[in-house]
Amino acid sequence: MGGAEIEQLIRLLARLPGLGPRSARRAALQLIKQREALMLPLVRAITEVAETVTACSVCGNVDSRDPCVICADQRRDGSLLCVVEDVADLWAIERSAVYRGRYHVLGGTLSALDGVGPEDLKIDQLIARAAEPGVEEVVLATNATVDGQTTAHYITDRLEGSGVRISRLASGVPVGGELDYLDDGTLSAAFRTRRPVAGE
Amino acid sequence: MGGAEIEQLIRLLARLPGLGPRSARRAALQLIKQREALMLPLVRAITEVAETVTACSVCGNVDSRDPCVICADQRRDGSLLCVVEDVADLWAIERSAVYRGRYHVLGGTLSALDGVGPEDLKIDQLIARAAEPGVEEVVLATNATVDGQTTAHYITDRLEGSGVRISRLASGVPVGGELDYLDDGTLSAAFRTRRPVAGE
Ligand SMILES: [Zn+2]
Ligand SMILES: [Zn+2]
Repeated sequence: MGGAEIEQLIRLLARLPGLGPRSARRAALQLIKQREALMLPLVRAITEVAETVTACSVCGNVDSRDPCVICADQRRDGSLLCVVEDVADLWAIERSAVYRGRYHVLGGTLSALDGVGPEDLKIDQLIARAAEPGVEEVVLATNATVDGQTTAHYITDRLEGSGVRISRLASGVPVGGELDYLDDGTLSAAFRTRRPVAGE
Repeated sequence: MGGAEIEQLIRLLARLPGLGPRSARRAALQLIKQREALMLPLVRAITEVAETVTACSVCGNVDSRDPCVICADQRRDGSLLCVVEDVADLWAIERSAVYRGRYHVLGGTLSALDGVGPEDLKIDQLIARAAEPGVEEVVLATNATVDGQTTAHYITDRLEGSGVRISRLASGVPVGGELDYLDDGTLSAAFRTRRPVAGE
């Protein structure tokens, strides 16, 4: 269909989340039709991102600067450290504009099934950051999934005795729900009503 | 969110069919995470397509050769000319492997609403191709929409007296389709064009 070049493009597009084989074909045709207005700008945009964007060495956010704009912003509240699984979750919280502290991106969750242990996540770095002077509260904002909650419990155990308060997002995050799917209102409510972890 | 470069990438990705703002954000993150396995290959694939792929000057298909592989394939039946609105339709028919003739891509449909007239489509070229020696039948495979059918009628009028046979795809119940789920238009079309059962 249209030669090896187009087929390779369709194959790669189909690996993007949200695009199946059929929409990947439509996307490829759209690119070809809108060569100047879409295809060439997209090549430039991806190349630009490939050349400039890296993971923030402090928090794990992705940005064209390191440290990222959030870590570099002195107006952000350095006493708060919000722990998320993924950059998509950080973006979701930023869109809700309810939180003005710093972040820590774990890079996933603990998962016995997928063989993900603490050493595969940025957990040691989190413990170290939580021990830095000025940090008063760690907000656990992992997903309300089994793995997300397991990870939150594990981090709670690791932080015990460190002197920082530990809180987690209030219910309002639906059971089994993923942060990145939530509307801003739900997310803001969950943030405002965050509670200390039981036992503290 | 992650700087101007990422935001521009998300904006462009969101213009692909099938990707909304949210899935564009996820796609951008996926690209950043899979830099070597996905982002750089995608840049190469789009660049390759941008450099090699053009519209076939004969039929309007997109390919890295001109004439396209279908037009260049001497084993295809040159007596049949299948008229489609769009390259996506040509691809769909090719996937079905039911047709072994040549194609003609109109580049859209007539549309009073969108101000698309015959001069905006490859209709003159179609009339010229239909008059070439060896062409015996024009198969109208425009969509079963109002605009698609209007376009088919217009082409039928233009081809009158040219000596080629004109046919159109049968309309009816899709294979595997349940009557109860069909819209009324499809059902009445299927009734009107009902055919004697083989053997009757
Ligand atoms: Zn950062
Ligand atoms: Zn062709």
